[in-house]
Amino acid sequence: MTIDRPELAKRPANFVALSPVSFLARAADFFGERIAVVHGARRLTYREFYARARRLAHALTKAGIKRGDTVAILAANIPAMLEAHYAAPMIGAVLNPINIRLDAPLIAFCLQHGGAKLLLADREFHATIAPALAGMGARAPIVVDIADAESEGAPRFGSIEYEDFIAAGDPQFVYAGPEDEWDSICLLYTSGTTGDPKGAVYSHRGAYLGALANALTFKLDHESRYLWTLPMFHCSGWTFTWAVTAAGGTHVCLRKVEPKRIFDAVVEQRVTHMCGAPIVLNMLVHAPADAKKPLPVRTKVATGGAAPPAIVIERMEAMGFEVLHLYGTTESYGPSTYCAPMP
Amino acid sequence: MTIDRPELAKRPANFVALSPVSFLARAADFFGERIAVVHGARRLTYREFYARARRLAHALTKAGIKRGDTVAILAANIPAMLEAHYAAPMIGAVLNPINIRLDAPLIAFCLQHGGAKLLLADREFHATIAPALAGMGARAPIVVDIADAESEGAPRFGSIEYEDFIAAGDPQFVYAGPEDEWDSICLLYTSGTTGDPKGAVYSHRGAYLGALANALTFKLDHESRYLWTLPMFHCSGWTFTWAVTAAGGTHVCLRKVEPKRIFDAVVEQRVTHMCGAPIVLNMLVHAPADAKKPLPVRTKVATGGAAPPAIVIERMEAMGFEVLHLYGTTESYGPSTYCAPMP
Repeated sequence: MTIDRPELAKRPANFVALSPVSFLARAADFFGERIAVVHGARRLTYREFYARARRLAHALTKAGIKRGDTVAILAANIPAMLEAHYAAPMIGAVLNPINIRLDAPLIAFCLQHGGAKLLLADREFHATIAPALAGMGARAPIVVDIADAESEGAPRFGSIEYEDFIAAGDPQFVYAGPEDEWDSICLLYTSGTTGDPKGAVYSHRGAYLGALANALTFKLDHESRYLWTLPMFHCSGWTFTWAVTAAGGTHVCLRKVEPKRIFDAVVEQRVTHMCGAPIVLNMLVHAPADAKKPLPVRTKVATGGAAPPAIVIERMEAMGFEVLHLYGTTESYGPSTYCAPMP
Repeated sequence: MTIDRPELAKRPANFVALSPVSFLARAADFFGERIAVVHGARRLTYREFYARARRLAHALTKAGIKRGDTVAILAANIPAMLEAHYAAPMIGAVLNPINIRLDAPLIAFCLQHGGAKLLLADREFHATIAPALAGMGARAPIVVDIADAESEGAPRFGSIEYEDFIAAGDPQFVYAGPEDEWDSICLLYTSGTTGDPKGAVYSHRGAYLGALANALTFKLDHESRYLWTLPMFHCSGWTFTWAVTAAGGTHVCLRKVEPKRIFDAVVEQRVTHMCGAPIVLNMLVHAPADAKKPLPVRTKVATGGAAPPAIVIERMEAMGFEVLHLYGTTESYGPSTYCAPMP
């Protein structure tokens, strides 16, 4: 029998690599005037978020960062963290978000072991970062420090401030993206409970697929308002740094995980989704009465690791939260299983 | 500076290919005892659905179907259509779902052009299929006909009936899946409005990604109950043949798109999601009063192509449906854009 059917599918020579960078480009196209990032009194639309990430990508290039180089960042859950999660991948660099709770020797270990060529550093953490850098001498990376309105008064210790650094970058910068979707996107060190921190490396493809799976499971959409109670340095925020953008939702930044700040943000920002370790749930349950507020919407809270005790879930639900239990590891891009609630 | 960081990510030698077949294996693992398929009085759990798909994959192998071969199916939206969407890909064969509304010459064209080696054929369509096969003579494929409880009395014309065919297959059949995620999974002919039908070829990777994107956009989960008002032969049901399974939801089959059948199914099955051309919306809006029923849940209806007139959307909403507008083409795996409702 003669088969005339169209040629069978095959890998095209120039197929589009799976990369979460595409989520931001798409959100800028389709949700450009909607709010992408809320941070205190600041608001960034998706158009602005994308332009700032491209500025940062260009500024990194001008600072000598090349494909495969490591760019470290040590910062609270502030806009620069989100911007870095797109800017480094845009130029094929590897982002290394560092745990803000590490002491100076461990910070130095991560910077040196990961081979960071440049560090984006939140001034709030000057007390641990400055000595870490001093101890590294000539091996210290270029330092861009971040002065954030939410942490005024912290001393500067970098060679340039973040806003000045990105101001020199082109908001229309044409980036190359990964050469291959298996290219590295992030380097994430575990907390080092069994010795020196261990590094897990994520790929563009894995980050893309993990983010989509989390967006699907957590039901994110363009009306979602995601509160950053989970550290972005932790498995890149369980991939929600990318998942929220994939859905075109709003990232609500949060510098400190404190009950009053959380309840205030949940109410003022009408937060629909948030994630956190079980201790965050405990903190909310045991918050002082004057910090607690009635929730305007039923906020979904995903919590990972050990299952929270039934009483904690019960009290969270009584306050109006909906609790979803996840489990995962740094090596699995954060959440890899969830407890599907049965009728 | 010495970089000690872990080896950068690279494509592993034996990485898992993206294929929607994995959705069914996962659903059988995690939602094994939940209802996967409803068809009239029949119910299949995910464990049974997976076992039947593996039986079919094995039976196809025993019938001589090899990697790259075309397996055609011409059937209404019945369980065999869903089973074929997993069984053919399991063995690297290419599924060619044929439009049930084609006449005999066009059916013969598709079978011959696509090089079908085997045809799964719903007895209901004997009046067009039998002459199509007769006209092909020795070039006709092996025919397995499907006797469905919902279309009793239709004459047989195949060499074996579907249930007998799959009964000889092993429910534990170990299948190889695609060799590469870019391998072909489906061949879909357009309706031929501009001459002979044109074939679009889907890949495992494209089907996987399209299905996940649709599940995300349409917010499917394991409690979703999806009514098959959209033909599965149409872009493989806009990838919902795979998307509903990815979410672990329930496929509610529907042999005929008639208002009374739809309202009955929506009410009895508490349907949460359905898709259809604008004409289906029109049909529901203009249904006889005795066919209409109050909806137990707010059913989401995704409609594609030209936007339905405002009055149709208004009347659909008044009946309790939520209308989502999509646009796409056969070449883009069905829906590729949607109208995100703004506040």
